Amino acid sequence: MDPDAVAKAFVDHYYSTFDSNRAALVGLYQDSSMLTFEAENLMGSQAIVAKLAGLPFQQFLHQISTTDCQPSGPAGGMLVFVSGTLQLQGEQHPLKFSQVFHLMPTPQGSFYVLNDIFRLIYA
Amino acid sequence: MDPDAVAKAFVDHYYSTFDSNRAALVGLYQDSSMLTFEAENLMGSQAIVAKLAGLPFQQFLHQISTTDCQPSGPAGGMLVFVSGTLQLQGEQHPLKFSQVFHLMPTPQGSFYVLNDIFRLIYA
Repeated sequence: MDPDAVAKAFVDHYYSTFDSNRAALVGLYQDSSMLTFEAENLMGSQAIVAKLAGLPFQQFLHQISTTDCQPSGPAGGMLVFVSGTLQLQGEQHPLKFSQVFHLMPTPQGSFYVLNDIFRLIYA
Repeated sequence: MDPDAVAKAFVDHYYSTFDSNRAALVGLYQDSSMLTFEAENLMGSQAIVAKLAGLPFQQFLHQISTTDCQPSGPAGGMLVFVSGTLQLQGEQHPLKFSQVFHLMPTPQGSFYVLNDIFRLIYA
């Protein structure tokens, strides 16, 4: 399977889910998953999705500018590095962000997010 | 060892070396290391450092805005996620960048860079 195609499919799925139904992201994380969101650390799918679903904005619209990926280690993991913009409802200007995902394979032939680090990039 | 302290020490060392003597970065990479630099893929310490040392600017000055880290997997790896600005000699305005490193432990108790992805973040 082409890693670039896997990364692109993951990124499309992740941000379209984020922008339509944040609670549905729970299936992408596991108990060992970690999210660092603007320097706040969360662990486990429930805590991570509670954080994302609880963000104080009704609507998000992510636009992806770049997606880079690399295979990562003998266990079949993959790093996916994203930059883009984020339009929040009621805000005039989109915000720039950068985010990295460390994906690990599941026994079912899919991937889950082991590591997730998100930062807004300020002007 | 405190992961945040390791990440901070790595970041300080990496960018001060980059800004003073790029060729000396060779010791941080190994044959299996990968760099994706503005969508260009390189593999192995020699190819990576040849790319970095050959960048067509005499002088770089990195300023770090944020450093985030997470432990990554059972092999003792660590993800380090950096955002900041980059001042190039002769350029009026600094450029924003974001970069992720996947560090792996060495038998000597240090770390090497397994994965490295760099992107400029445009306005």
